[in-house]
Amino acid sequence: MSRKIEEFMKKHGLEVGDLIRVIKRDGDELLTFEGLVMPPYELSPGETLTIKLDNGYNIGILIDAIERVEVLENAAEKPKMTFQEVLPRKEGLPNVTILGTGGTIASRIDYKTGAVHPAFTAEELAKAVPEIFEMANVTPKLIMNILSEDMKPEYWKRIAHEVAKALNSGEDGVIIAHGTDTMGYTASALSFMLRNLTKPVVLVGAQRSSDRPSSDSAMNLTCAVKMATSDVAEVMVVMHGETSDTYCLAHRGTKVRKMHTSRRDAFRSINDIPIAKVWKDRIELLRDDYRRRSEGEVEVDDRIEEKVAILKIYPGISGEILDFLVDKGYRGVVIEGTGLGHVPQDFIPHVERAVEEGVAVCVTSQCLYGRVNLNVYSNGRKLLKAGAIPCEDMLPETAYVKLMWVLGHTDDLEEVRKMMLTNYAGEITPYTRFDTFLR
Amino acid sequence: MSRKIEEFMKKHGLEVGDLIRVIKRDGDELLTFEGLVMPPYELSPGETLTIKLDNGYNIGILIDAIERVEVLENAAEKPKMTFQEVLPRKEGLPNVTILGTGGTIASRIDYKTGAVHPAFTAEELAKAVPEIFEMANVTPKLIMNILSEDMKPEYWKRIAHEVAKALNSGEDGVIIAHGTDTMGYTASALSFMLRNLTKPVVLVGAQRSSDRPSSDSAMNLTCAVKMATSDVAEVMVVMHGETSDTYCLAHRGTKVRKMHTSRRDAFRSINDIPIAKVWKDRIELLRDDYRRRSEGEVEVDDRIEEKVAILKIYPGISGEILDFLVDKGYRGVVIEGTGLGHVPQDFIPHVERAVEEGVAVCVTSQCLYGRVNLNVYSNGRKLLKAGAIPCEDMLPETAYVKLMWVLGHTDDLEEVRKMMLTNYAGEITPYTRFDTFLR
Repeated sequence: MSRKIEEFMKKHGLEVGDLIRVIKRDGDELLTFEGLVMPPYELSPGETLTIKLDNGYNIGILIDAIERVEVLENAAEKPKMTFQEVLPRKEGLPNVTILGTGGTIASRIDYKTGAVHPAFTAEELAKAVPEIFEMANVTPKLIMNILSEDMKPEYWKRIAHEVAKALNSGEDGVIIAHGTDTMGYTASALSFMLRNLTKPVVLVGAQRSSDRPSSDSAMNLTCAVKMATSDVAEVMVVMHGETSDTYCLAHRGTKVRKMHTSRRDAFRSINDIPIAKVWKDRIELLRDDYRRRSEGEVEVDDRIEEKVAILKIYPGISGEILDFLVDKGYRGVVIEGTGLGHVPQDFIPHVERAVEEGVAVCVTSQCLYGRVNLNVYSNGRKLLKAGAIPCEDMLPETAYVKLMWVLGHTDDLEEVRKMMLTNYAGEITPYTRFDTFLR
Repeated sequence: MSRKIEEFMKKHGLEVGDLIRVIKRDGDELLTFEGLVMPPYELSPGETLTIKLDNGYNIGILIDAIERVEVLENAAEKPKMTFQEVLPRKEGLPNVTILGTGGTIASRIDYKTGAVHPAFTAEELAKAVPEIFEMANVTPKLIMNILSEDMKPEYWKRIAHEVAKALNSGEDGVIIAHGTDTMGYTASALSFMLRNLTKPVVLVGAQRSSDRPSSDSAMNLTCAVKMATSDVAEVMVVMHGETSDTYCLAHRGTKVRKMHTSRRDAFRSINDIPIAKVWKDRIELLRDDYRRRSEGEVEVDDRIEEKVAILKIYPGISGEILDFLVDKGYRGVVIEGTGLGHVPQDFIPHVERAVEEGVAVCVTSQCLYGRVNLNVYSNGRKLLKAGAIPCEDMLPETAYVKLMWVLGHTDDLEEVRKMMLTNYAGEITPYTRFDTFLR
């Protein structure tokens, strides 16, 4: 696929990330723009060159109207300054490491490019969100560069080790910049993998990329820094609390879920209240049963069993799908049952068979809100009898991550049951607060 | 499994549903109770006999304390009165048929019994919710007796035909009493199967069985009768709007979902506002773009393809599960993607292969709220290119039912795409209202 834009870039030797000057005809006038070359949209007609101006805005310039192009700074040759060269550490400020993984918050890597460019330097961060350098000595570190739908269990381990390394080397808190699609899953994984957590770990993302005027990345990031320097030594997700720029919410990592495809306040605590409301300069704690900052080494327990699946129940579902998973050597399956955690009567023998073969079958609800209870109706009681493990008020996604982690420690089904029903990281609440529905 | 209760019932020739008199020792006294024999709980120790008293309460009587039992009326021999014998039709009142399918609202059939008992007679209904007989000439008809998690696509057809039969024989509206677990799925199915709908069709259930003091069944049923006699000729779900007995909401059948395992206000419209607020004596319409009552025969188009599955995406999911469905002859798969409708990059070749083999792959979002958009990120665009069909703001459950129905009409993938993106029953809104998030 060779469009005008590709040919134009090739002809002028332009690469994504180059700082260029463009001179453009506008009737009788010549206009000059300076900015960074942005990757061309794949599905656009390819008639324009997009550059990111110094003020953060992107403009598209019709190729036919371009009179001249000069490369001011080549992307490949740009000096990579270390953090210390950009901004020296200030006495008295807390130290926070921001681990970059990709996703919308580091918007320059949102677009698909052939080339890999450093996209998360201190310079770029300082330019995009200067306030955070007043709040903390911020060290950015890009540890991977993926879209969050490509996140994998093995990457969770890498993130966990990077977090522990930073915290154990004296940082006061760690922020993980993460795409929003699977941020809830990663937050859960870190909640189980990071043991003896003594400092805050904050996942943050953006629903609108930072080159859009409506971006939520700056406010989310400042609030994330605020939480990362707080007294709450838990894994949290910090995102917009409302759709306007009023405040952020800090959600417990095991109780949070992306509930909207595009709204800035998409992240919601389910079956629990958030830990805090956050502004860039203050925190309002909404509860006092959180883990406090303390001393001690953070440990990583990253043993997981990856052969686990989520299976959603629907009318007409065939038990052959569960059979297939068992035959394929899956060690655990999280069922998203209907209502209180039900499956059709004719599905139950397949659960029985799975359990007989040593597969852990855990039950959650596709309602998302509320608690499973297999004691009310006959099919639930049969499911219990078949050996299914009811996961209280755990989210299906959290139960999935937890089951991987539990199966990394034992394959004895009684031990699995015990561990699944043990509250390790706030994933089970003893009773569900009334005021947490659709909050 | 032979427990004391089974032996006791056998010895005294008791059957579930028998009206009995029990004389019980209480110290020196003898107490007498009269009521209906309830089925013994399967998982209880089986030491008590449960009877339902005339006032609606259940009591358990220790078998060891029972002095004597008399059967007053044998369940099998109870006279089956027709509606007309119980309450003659009143001039001027609208006529409403209530189709019973099982579930909590007809609480006497909630418990698992070996025997099948008529559980949904006019007498019982008149006793439980007398108000509705002032609102309409109500004809109850039990058409099946299942727990709603056992609902199957083939039963949807049966319900659709019963609804059409009642409406086309002159009833002014039809109510379907349905268990809550899969009520949303059935509401969707009826929305697509009932063509040229000219009168209201209301699904109603209860989250608490009618023998509990906190039951929502009476209020839900009266509100359902109100909606069934209204001007709204659509398939609707009528359930509590708040957790207290304030009002009910009438939700559009394709836009409603059970969002809580146990709350009485569990049913919520997603990506849309409800059609109306309902009280037993009035309706407040929340919108005016509903289908009006009119003349004409209701038609049933019940052609569906049952080889369809829902597949939820999660980090680490293996494409082999999709391959399995293709190999097993599934004709359609609804993907619950992450965020805007994404799947991992390494999952996309499996989608490609499915589409190449003629399988319809539709994309929805596990966020539930919001709209899929595969044009924003590269993996989305690749998914589009692979031939996936993005389902706008449809619920995954609605997309599943719709895809079955669409595939019942065509297996040409271009035609499938066209039909999936055609709005047949309010399942797609052109834009998502801002005020519908977590409403």
